[in-house]
Amino acid sequence: MWERLWIDVHLATDAHGTGQPGGDDFGIVRNGAIAANQGKIVWVGRQADLPAAPETLASEVISGQGGWMTAGLVDPHTHLVFGGDRSAEFAERLQGVSYQDIARRGGGILSTVRATREASEAELLALTLKRARRLITNGVTTVEIKSGYGLTLDDELKQLRVARAVSEHLPIRVHTTFLGAHALPPEFAGRQGDYVTHLCETMLPAVADAGLADSVDAFCETIAFQPAEVERIFEAARRWNLPLRLHADQMSDLGGGHLAARWGALSADHVEYASEASVAAMAESGTVAMLLPGAFYFVREHQLPPVALFRKHGVPMGLATDCNPGTSPVLSPTGVMNMACTLFRLTPGETLAGHTHIAARALGLDGAVGRLAPGMAADMALWNVSGPHELSYWIGGVVPVTRIFGGVPDGSVT
Amino acid sequence: MWERLWIDVHLATDAHGTGQPGGDDFGIVRNGAIAANQGKIVWVGRQADLPAAPETLASEVISGQGGWMTAGLVDPHTHLVFGGDRSAEFAERLQGVSYQDIARRGGGILSTVRATREASEAELLALTLKRARRLITNGVTTVEIKSGYGLTLDDELKQLRVARAVSEHLPIRVHTTFLGAHALPPEFAGRQGDYVTHLCETMLPAVADAGLADSVDAFCETIAFQPAEVERIFEAARRWNLPLRLHADQMSDLGGGHLAARWGALSADHVEYASEASVAAMAESGTVAMLLPGAFYFVREHQLPPVALFRKHGVPMGLATDCNPGTSPVLSPTGVMNMACTLFRLTPGETLAGHTHIAARALGLDGAVGRLAPGMAADMALWNVSGPHELSYWIGGVVPVTRIFGGVPDGSVT
Ligand SMILES: [Zn+2]
Ligand SMILES: [Zn+2]
Repeated sequence: MWERLWIDVHLATDAHGTGQPGGDDFGIVRNGAIAANQGKIVWVGRQADLPAAPETLASEVISGQGGWMTAGLVDPHTHLVFGGDRSAEFAERLQGVSYQDIARRGGGILSTVRATREASEAELLALTLKRARRLITNGVTTVEIKSGYGLTLDDELKQLRVARAVSEHLPIRVHTTFLGAHALPPEFAGRQGDYVTHLCETMLPAVADAGLADSVDAFCETIAFQPAEVERIFEAARRWNLPLRLHADQMSDLGGGHLAARWGALSADHVEYASEASVAAMAESGTVAMLLPGAFYFVREHQLPPVALFRKHGVPMGLATDCNPGTSPVLSPTGVMNMACTLFRLTPGETLAGHTHIAARALGLDGAVGRLAPGMAADMALWNVSGPHELSYWIGGVVPVTRIFGGVPDGSVT
Repeated sequence: MWERLWIDVHLATDAHGTGQPGGDDFGIVRNGAIAANQGKIVWVGRQADLPAAPETLASEVISGQGGWMTAGLVDPHTHLVFGGDRSAEFAERLQGVSYQDIARRGGGILSTVRATREASEAELLALTLKRARRLITNGVTTVEIKSGYGLTLDDELKQLRVARAVSEHLPIRVHTTFLGAHALPPEFAGRQGDYVTHLCETMLPAVADAGLADSVDAFCETIAFQPAEVERIFEAARRWNLPLRLHADQMSDLGGGHLAARWGALSADHVEYASEASVAAMAESGTVAMLLPGAFYFVREHQLPPVALFRKHGVPMGLATDCNPGTSPVLSPTGVMNMACTLFRLTPGETLAGHTHIAARALGLDGAVGRLAPGMAADMALWNVSGPHELSYWIGGVVPVTRIFGGVPDGSVT
């Protein structure tokens, strides 16, 4: 006997964008049913094909009331753990204060580093849980969380412990990423090479040893870490068998997409400036192009990511909120899906794929979450919409009527 | 004894953008208190200045837990009552199908007209209540709702009755607007002048007679109604003492802002193409410039509204979702506030003013809703944020922890 069976639902089982680039079919099963047992999906299909009467099959039979069930949303790129508040800086910039002036006064990313260092672990956790609750309300069941605002070993460990703790307090899966190479800490001003050495020889081994990182990331950009420095970091991460990802080609083409591909990274993120050579290499290596339209919108970038090239070469396009206080204060995956359609001209099907199974693939969770299929985690979202296109159509118009985590509907935990 | 008193709150009493154009002060009272009695605000100030101990002043004393209280949000331009679903059309357009091809197949606005006519009043009400509930969740306490998808007398009356009914079912104030001049109904193809005559001589008098419209609107544009036609409609509306508003200068400068001002309209809406002559006339007449960044974003408009001119001439800038199925499927006022900052460079203070007291003024409700001041309706929203800047900073990151309508917190109705 299954624990739970949903009937009277339509299913978007397997939204895809890579199988048919530019496609939009969602893997629809109308008048479907889906069963969960012990945290996993155990049956998916047409309700008419159920092997017996619903009430004989499951302890609990739930009517989806004609709504649409999708996989729970996956948010595969966030900087969710941070202290401080940069909304006043946001306001100042609208008053015409330049980014340089704000940085000179100690604002910008280093103000977040300072506030994150100063915050206690309990304070950081409370702030992070508040943000994670918004993601949950908005349909997220798996989230990636990066460090990178500590930039000392202790503060990076603190951030990663907070990230891990999120899944102890809330019904959400967490993938943690060590992003010590996010910015140069002020203590190492003028000695970036020394910081990279410290990161590779001290910080990364300690993080790995503590089991606090599921992957390693770096910010590869002229104003951040250079390709040769990134390769030193990737070399160190490889010694610890940690999967790689990379902030690549956001503001200029440093060949970051190609670098990520050469190293077999799970994803190259932002990639607005990626060249066709990088795209081809990413296709070869199976590296996901992680598009972040929230940051694109927020910083008023004009360079569009090469969507046509990603489609042509068959590079899967993922989507994420990139939630961070400086360039993407975004906690709405469906808002990101709308921006991906409106600004990048992705199809609704591509955007749902981007925030479900392609996002899962970028976390090394392909085959575990992100699709409605037997054997996958029973992480799902039920939406009161006329069809899955509506998810990327509205701004502020849809949240799941029920989110289901490991087979358990929110609110039904006893 | 007051019915309710909130303490331990910070107050944004009177956010403004017009008093100090480009300003950003919100009328802040830190460590404040605010009392409601019989639906009205009866006391606002610093908690330390309360005339006695809180529990001796009010039957119910509520801690705001250090959150921020603002006026409830006002959404002064929506097309909330419509049948059908154009999310599939949204998807088609992303697949490269042209607007012309969609219109040729009966899509576009006329598909919404058809679906709205076909829907029963009960069906339309159910759809509209679903959308209104999202606005309520997102902090709205007063909403304007237009007709304009019926385009026959009976169907316009039906839309307006549905709009009125919203406030009978949900705790929200509704201002209704007759927008018979939204599009030319197919029955009058080639006879636009005849439709305007029918509208002025039959539809508008019947709508007014039924008491179903609080104001009259028209869509003034080369592809819609021409200035001379709009003036005929305004003339008719004036005979019924109905306030005016106008969809003006959205795609071209037809002098719509100037026309609205000459007729003393409450607002001229969209106004991306308004000339300085129009702006000056609007300043003279006190006509609100109703900015609709959701539509700007959704249709990927490039012409920015003349914000600098509005500031220079002291024209108050309102904000609205413009919720409609074709060009602005938006139900998030804070999302609109973010777009107003990011795309139009308004300040956070201007955006909160735009969605509170300036929006109220555009509905003829200045002095009744939209500010935290004695005598105003006790329509409020309590936000768990570090300051009012945060309301326009996040995308999908903030909803009120409590919305208060007529002094009654949501959820506390018994
Ligand atoms: Zn990032
Ligand atoms: Zn409109």
